[in-house]
Amino acid sequence: MSDSQKVALGLDFGTESVRALLVDLAGRELASAVSAYRHGQITDILPGTAEKLPPNFALQHPQDWIDSAALAVRGAVEKAGLTGDEIIGIGVDFTSCTMLPAKRDGTPLCLLPEFAKDKFAWPKLWKHHGAEKQTERINELARSRNEPWLDRYGGIIGLEWFFPKMLETLEEAPHVYDAAEVWLEAGDWFVWQLVDSAAVDLARSTCQAGYKAMWHSTEGYPSPEFFAELNPKLANVVAEKMPGRMLAPGESAGNLCQAMVERFGLKKSAPVSAATIDAHAGVPGAGAADPGTLVMVMGTSSCHMLNGRDERSVPGVAGVVEGGILPGLFGYETGQAAVGDAFDWLRQTVGEPNFDRLTKQAAVLPPGAEGVRCMDWLNGCRTPLMDGSLRGAFTGLTLGHGAPHMYRALMEASAFGVRWIVELLRENGVPVEKFVATGGLPHHNPLLVQIYADVLGEPISVHPSQQGPALGAAILGVIAAGPEASSFATTQAAIAAMAGEIAGEKDRESVVVQPDQEAHNAYSRVYADYRKLGEFLAS
Amino acid sequence: MSDSQKVALGLDFGTESVRALLVDLAGRELASAVSAYRHGQITDILPGTAEKLPPNFALQHPQDWIDSAALAVRGAVEKAGLTGDEIIGIGVDFTSCTMLPAKRDGTPLCLLPEFAKDKFAWPKLWKHHGAEKQTERINELARSRNEPWLDRYGGIIGLEWFFPKMLETLEEAPHVYDAAEVWLEAGDWFVWQLVDSAAVDLARSTCQAGYKAMWHSTEGYPSPEFFAELNPKLANVVAEKMPGRMLAPGESAGNLCQAMVERFGLKKSAPVSAATIDAHAGVPGAGAADPGTLVMVMGTSSCHMLNGRDERSVPGVAGVVEGGILPGLFGYETGQAAVGDAFDWLRQTVGEPNFDRLTKQAAVLPPGAEGVRCMDWLNGCRTPLMDGSLRGAFTGLTLGHGAPHMYRALMEASAFGVRWIVELLRENGVPVEKFVATGGLPHHNPLLVQIYADVLGEPISVHPSQQGPALGAAILGVIAAGPEASSFATTQAAIAAMAGEIAGEKDRESVVVQPDQEAHNAYSRVYADYRKLGEFLAS
Repeated sequence: MSDSQKVALGLDFGTESVRALLVDLAGRELASAVSAYRHGQITDILPGTAEKLPPNFALQHPQDWIDSAALAVRGAVEKAGLTGDEIIGIGVDFTSCTMLPAKRDGTPLCLLPEFAKDKFAWPKLWKHHGAEKQTERINELARSRNEPWLDRYGGIIGLEWFFPKMLETLEEAPHVYDAAEVWLEAGDWFVWQLVDSAAVDLARSTCQAGYKAMWHSTEGYPSPEFFAELNPKLANVVAEKMPGRMLAPGESAGNLCQAMVERFGLKKSAPVSAATIDAHAGVPGAGAADPGTLVMVMGTSSCHMLNGRDERSVPGVAGVVEGGILPGLFGYETGQAAVGDAFDWLRQTVGEPNFDRLTKQAAVLPPGAEGVRCMDWLNGCRTPLMDGSLRGAFTGLTLGHGAPHMYRALMEASAFGVRWIVELLRENGVPVEKFVATGGLPHHNPLLVQIYADVLGEPISVHPSQQGPALGAAILGVIAAGPEASSFATTQAAIAAMAGEIAGEKDRESVVVQPDQEAHNAYSRVYADYRKLGEFLAS
Repeated sequence: MSDSQKVALGLDFGTESVRALLVDLAGRELASAVSAYRHGQITDILPGTAEKLPPNFALQHPQDWIDSAALAVRGAVEKAGLTGDEIIGIGVDFTSCTMLPAKRDGTPLCLLPEFAKDKFAWPKLWKHHGAEKQTERINELARSRNEPWLDRYGGIIGLEWFFPKMLETLEEAPHVYDAAEVWLEAGDWFVWQLVDSAAVDLARSTCQAGYKAMWHSTEGYPSPEFFAELNPKLANVVAEKMPGRMLAPGESAGNLCQAMVERFGLKKSAPVSAATIDAHAGVPGAGAADPGTLVMVMGTSSCHMLNGRDERSVPGVAGVVEGGILPGLFGYETGQAAVGDAFDWLRQTVGEPNFDRLTKQAAVLPPGAEGVRCMDWLNGCRTPLMDGSLRGAFTGLTLGHGAPHMYRALMEASAFGVRWIVELLRENGVPVEKFVATGGLPHHNPLLVQIYADVLGEPISVHPSQQGPALGAAILGVIAAGPEASSFATTQAAIAAMAGEIAGEKDRESVVVQPDQEAHNAYSRVYADYRKLGEFLAS
């Protein structure tokens, strides 16, 4: 089979549905299909019971992942008119930290009759917020013990991460904790199912482990001493309940097992990459193969990711993980907690039915919004302050200003947030050389991209892909298949070929937004105000 | 004639019209009539010419004041069914600083043929903003010379005041300055006309002179040295071009001259009080006779006034003037530059057609607006920082907040502004014991008054009068007539009888809004945030 006949499958697990994307080795989309989870987000009533869930609960049904993936893959293969034997590699990206307790053979506890009615036995979705107390205690203890891993996460770990969710179950439902033989990320669980959990050792993704479970390539997880002090029963949790081998996304977890070949309606097996986090799959999906390219995945919130050749401790950067995004590189993850969400908040607050008028009026204002300043922490500050309790602000308001000034100031604040992150990375020895924007926002909001370019004083490539994570997952599948399966000698070659720029090709030509030097100079003064405001608000 | 047959006339000169109010000595309104000035505000074309005025110009026609006052008085007398000989005293309040150049006999320069076409010869309305450069230079020089009077005005004098407007004419039209034999406030000019400017020495109001022309009861005006350094031609301006005697509002400037008795359609003369500023007339108009009562005149902006027995220098208080409000007391003037204006700005910014829904939603929020904080400096800060360049802010915003939170936070900020003023006065030895709210806002916005009461931790009387300044002017007329003309032995007795509370009488019963102690405690914490925010924004 020549490269031109080969196909990669990317499975992109979102909060409500899974997308199956089939691409050829030039990255051209052959077909894609989406299948919504039968139970969606479980936030109201626990399935099979009449139990009303607490308001901070968000669960999922593991069977949905398998069922929907099968439907989506079958749908995509049919649409593409494939026979089912062209697939040479499979990649999986998943929301994270979505996690669950399972038996040693991979059976989720919640699928066992004796645990089906216990909400703590169910997979907790990334946005499950039941572990507030536990998160606080973990942070306090880590600080008091001066845990060395705390620095890698900007000094604070998050409510949605792995161990808070696990500790919540241990404390709220110890019998569930006791019965669990394996605690794992949903992405890892799904990949394990693909390669046959009864036969193959569990592959844990360095991406999820590194960004959500305080794992480090040489130091491993937090120490037994730390865990023991948190809760004596946790002392040996890693040895007892977290078996498996660590693999980077793009490394093969095994081959698709026969049961799954059949379930997916395929003809033959193919290597399956270790899982990755959905946002992180956007990096290869945006054609960013080289260290030094900041991939800005901009949506309701933003995740800005970058690969580096070296490990640097950057204060306030949410995670630095070896193999966290691509094999052999250090993945840096930073983020902004409210971007599109914040814009939408403003639009609603000022009573506009849509963005049209606001955008038009904001666009004609000069850089600096005629003196209005904003702090975009409407959902706290992720990078660099890692403090969800911080809040947003507008200053510089006069009777002569209006909603368009506030909207422009908010967009500018969002750009300043990125500039702060970039400065932080560079100051700490992490090169940032190129900028790629992807996700939903850049395509819909060219004014925003121009403001980002002007504030950064750097050109920004808006990547044309509308489904970066799924494409990234497919590319990771090809990489996992190894150089013998394709003509790609390196990870970089695969990414460049499958998601890189192709001039003149509609779906592959990035729009490059150039910075305006005069605006950049003006913004530098406004940025000083932003930092000063941030200092005040965080004090 | 018994007291019950006696009548007082108040003339309230606004920006667009004059109101004549006739009240009996119990303060009951007999009739009132309004007459709009024929030329209104002159901001576009100079009358009798085709000359387009600069955008910062705002002039008035002196003949309008006489003509409209005559029409209004005749209208009110007729409506009241009076014969015209019942009037025992006349008071005049006027916008300020509205000022003009005149000849020694009182003829306004602009009414002389040789000056009619020169815009600088015309009365400048209070809101005329042509003297920016001059104001800046006056402030710079005063600071560099460390002028002792600067402290009485919070360290800064205003663009709309007397000497900036005069200096503007001297520099822009020296021939007009040279031709002027008397520079004076419009209120003083009008009173002078009433008592016959050809026959009676000009009475200058201590109110206008004290608040707008840096005059002090013992120190007088700024020194010749100061004026000489500002401009050599100004060295002896006070001696040369500012003749007259100083009288407090409530002191008689003379009796209505025969020409005016006829012009107004009356039967006999009556004493005329020295003029007062319109806002300041609101103090007696709100029944506030005693030192220690803060009269909050709340409208688009707010003017908070208070009489004290002693002179204290209070940093940031816009003016302390002996006899500035009432004879024999020290009048303290403070203010907030945006109140109703700021609320209206918010309403428009959030796209609400009126206040109904906003108010309903803001009313059910707890004190502190669920964490949203505001700084109400949307038109700069008058008291205590006297800095028009300061700007407003909102902090503490999250995606969960909306327009009602911002509206409540803005009302709270407005109340905190008053609390700051009250603390400042008290800390500097000026007692503040009672609170009276008047002006347009308190009647329309009971939630605002409740927030003020809760924030201050003090009961607030909402004075029922809908036309406090006109009533105050009428009372000043009675006071000017002296104790022999009425049965009032003192100023306080006249004010209490004519504007004081009368329980059970619809138009004279104040609504007293009591503070809620729990809310007050909560607000004290929020107030600390307000001050901290103010410190940051002013830094």
